[in-house]
Amino acid sequence: MARIVMKFGGTSVADLERIRTAAARVKREVEAGRQVAVVVSAMAGVTNQLVDWVRQLDPLHDAREYDAVVATGEQVTSGLMAIALQAIGVPARSWAGWQLPIHTDAMHGKARITGIERAAIDARFAQGMVAVVAGFQGIGPDNRITTLGRGGSDTSAVAVAAAIGAERCDIYTDVDGVYTADPRIVERAQKLERISYEEMFELASLGSKVLQPRSVEIAMNHRVRLAVLSSFKDVPGTLICNEDEIVEHHVVSGIAHARDEAKITVVKVADRPGIAASLFGPLADAGINVDMIVQNISPDGSSTDMTFTIGRADLDRALVVLNNARDEIGFTELRPDNKVAKVSVVGVGMRSHAGVALTMFRTLAAERINIQLITTSEIKVSVLIDEKYLELAVRALHTAYGLDG
Amino acid sequence: MARIVMKFGGTSVADLERIRTAAARVKREVEAGRQVAVVVSAMAGVTNQLVDWVRQLDPLHDAREYDAVVATGEQVTSGLMAIALQAIGVPARSWAGWQLPIHTDAMHGKARITGIERAAIDARFAQGMVAVVAGFQGIGPDNRITTLGRGGSDTSAVAVAAAIGAERCDIYTDVDGVYTADPRIVERAQKLERISYEEMFELASLGSKVLQPRSVEIAMNHRVRLAVLSSFKDVPGTLICNEDEIVEHHVVSGIAHARDEAKITVVKVADRPGIAASLFGPLADAGINVDMIVQNISPDGSSTDMTFTIGRADLDRALVVLNNARDEIGFTELRPDNKVAKVSVVGVGMRSHAGVALTMFRTLAAERINIQLITTSEIKVSVLIDEKYLELAVRALHTAYGLDG
Repeated sequence: MARIVMKFGGTSVADLERIRTAAARVKREVEAGRQVAVVVSAMAGVTNQLVDWVRQLDPLHDAREYDAVVATGEQVTSGLMAIALQAIGVPARSWAGWQLPIHTDAMHGKARITGIERAAIDARFAQGMVAVVAGFQGIGPDNRITTLGRGGSDTSAVAVAAAIGAERCDIYTDVDGVYTADPRIVERAQKLERISYEEMFELASLGSKVLQPRSVEIAMNHRVRLAVLSSFKDVPGTLICNEDEIVEHHVVSGIAHARDEAKITVVKVADRPGIAASLFGPLADAGINVDMIVQNISPDGSSTDMTFTIGRADLDRALVVLNNARDEIGFTELRPDNKVAKVSVVGVGMRSHAGVALTMFRTLAAERINIQLITTSEIKVSVLIDEKYLELAVRALHTAYGLDG
Repeated sequence: MARIVMKFGGTSVADLERIRTAAARVKREVEAGRQVAVVVSAMAGVTNQLVDWVRQLDPLHDAREYDAVVATGEQVTSGLMAIALQAIGVPARSWAGWQLPIHTDAMHGKARITGIERAAIDARFAQGMVAVVAGFQGIGPDNRITTLGRGGSDTSAVAVAAAIGAERCDIYTDVDGVYTADPRIVERAQKLERISYEEMFELASLGSKVLQPRSVEIAMNHRVRLAVLSSFKDVPGTLICNEDEIVEHHVVSGIAHARDEAKITVVKVADRPGIAASLFGPLADAGINVDMIVQNISPDGSSTDMTFTIGRADLDRALVVLNNARDEIGFTELRPDNKVAKVSVVGVGMRSHAGVALTMFRTLAAERINIQLITTSEIKVSVLIDEKYLELAVRALHTAYGLDG
């Protein structure tokens, strides 16, 4: 019998009426003869409230207690969903992460799933029941509740799909699919019928908020077909699948952007081996992820400037960390800038088409937008620009790559 | 090292400020050299919200899913309490009921604790930590979350105290002790310095809302000294202890009342052996507790009237149950009355003093209050009266037994 996973995000279970609507969708799939595992997020706003309480009590809170508090949001929804299903005649039961269990590593607050025990779900499927699983959580090697970090319910859903051998994982959300760019910025953005795992992973990593990157990574590794669908409109969504299942390829599939970037230039660092390690080691120890890095050529050969980007929320902390390590690193000045944004073009077609980056640079130049940093990979080009040109850049690139609908 | 349990009710952890206040109280006990286990309720209002959601989705909800949803309230508070303690330098960790674990039977929604594993608490105590335990919950033999019924956190606290061999269990609440009567009704009610387990159990069973009866029962069986204290005022509370620890005894210790009563008279039941079983069997099967029962003498010897009381919330359901069993029971009419209330006088002194019931009947007669039903036990006398005389009756009895302050 065909198995699917249906995942409902926070806005899709925001109140009892929406939970009932979601339950009715599940019933439809059950009546179509499918075995269904449902993965739910917390009701919209609940996680924020819980996180806020924890932070107010202690900004440097114990991550294990944070997890115990915050994981309750999904537990509530999973129980309510099971009850809503039973109320319309669909036998169902719920599991919290620890119960199934969903095993994770010990990184409380941003744990990674290490394994899911499927026996309980298989047993309930055999009894004709729907399995409802609380997303975003698991249990760590310390036998304590863990959470997977923001957006983690997507990852829970894909991991459950992989574990139970589901033929598809449907992500129900408040948008109706993956677009060539954010439709709030680009009016002529088009919904993609299909997109490859690799491209979706890049888009998600580069600022598209439709899916958590880790969920796409697991889907890619386990070849789980992912669909992004609207909870509110009955329209086709976007299928994330193998590249070879996609017939027509554009060179560029989408334009991603990320606003919450900050840049730090470290002025006059000694130009000697090991300097990058002495600079980025303390940041890594502080849990601050560095994204783009550029080392300028030093004019006098003895010192150099290093520029890199981090998440804007980490800027203040990064400056403290670097200033504390100043003697060890050796620099004259830190120049922070929190008014920067990252724009990226993504497409597997780049592999076989030269000149994709050049089109990007020419387009931005024509709009008189200065490029501050550049990074590339096999299927993407990212540039850092002044935040105020962000919308202009995304629109111009969307047109330049022929994506306008 | 002396061990105590401190239990904070819903109003005592209603917001972050109150959680901080409670944490400061815990710190004081820790600094006085005590090993402290804290048991918490859900923040005031949270449980009602969760119960309301469940009932709206399905009035006949699955009790196991109800438990999964409703138990989250205490889990949130336990994590927040641990964080609040850590924030003021008190090492602490939290446990949900399933985690410790607190074992219960399988009666979801009103489970009874069958055992508590103390090893984890002992281990943390040995490390100088405070143990924070989510009240109201446990884990059943089906490995699913159970809850203990309303007020269950009191029971959790006493059971933890018994399990870890605590010398005292302090119940912090929104009243500052146990009174000779409800101070909202009797202005001259006095706070009791001490009261025996037996009397407190009767008071709690007969309508005093200060403690859950089951918590007093466990305290009595395990000889745990219970203190009822105010979370908001720093005044002495009431100690619930062995009778022999109480020097001065009144004949009557307190007047209890319960408003939420209903009465059903079953008219012209056949007066034959087994009739009580055929009447009360179906009610028990429906989970409806019958309290007072009176069988009238039948004038003609062939039929009789049975009158009994139940909780007012169960009245409609009880009438349906009895009407469905009408053929089997055989009666002419059901006369329901939901405007009745129960007033009780409680005191261990009754054992050695005759005439306590007589004083009650005379006092009520002097106020022209008709007694509808009477039940007695070794240390209490209860009467059912018209609800509109409730306050009058309680005040008159309070004066009659010399309890006015």
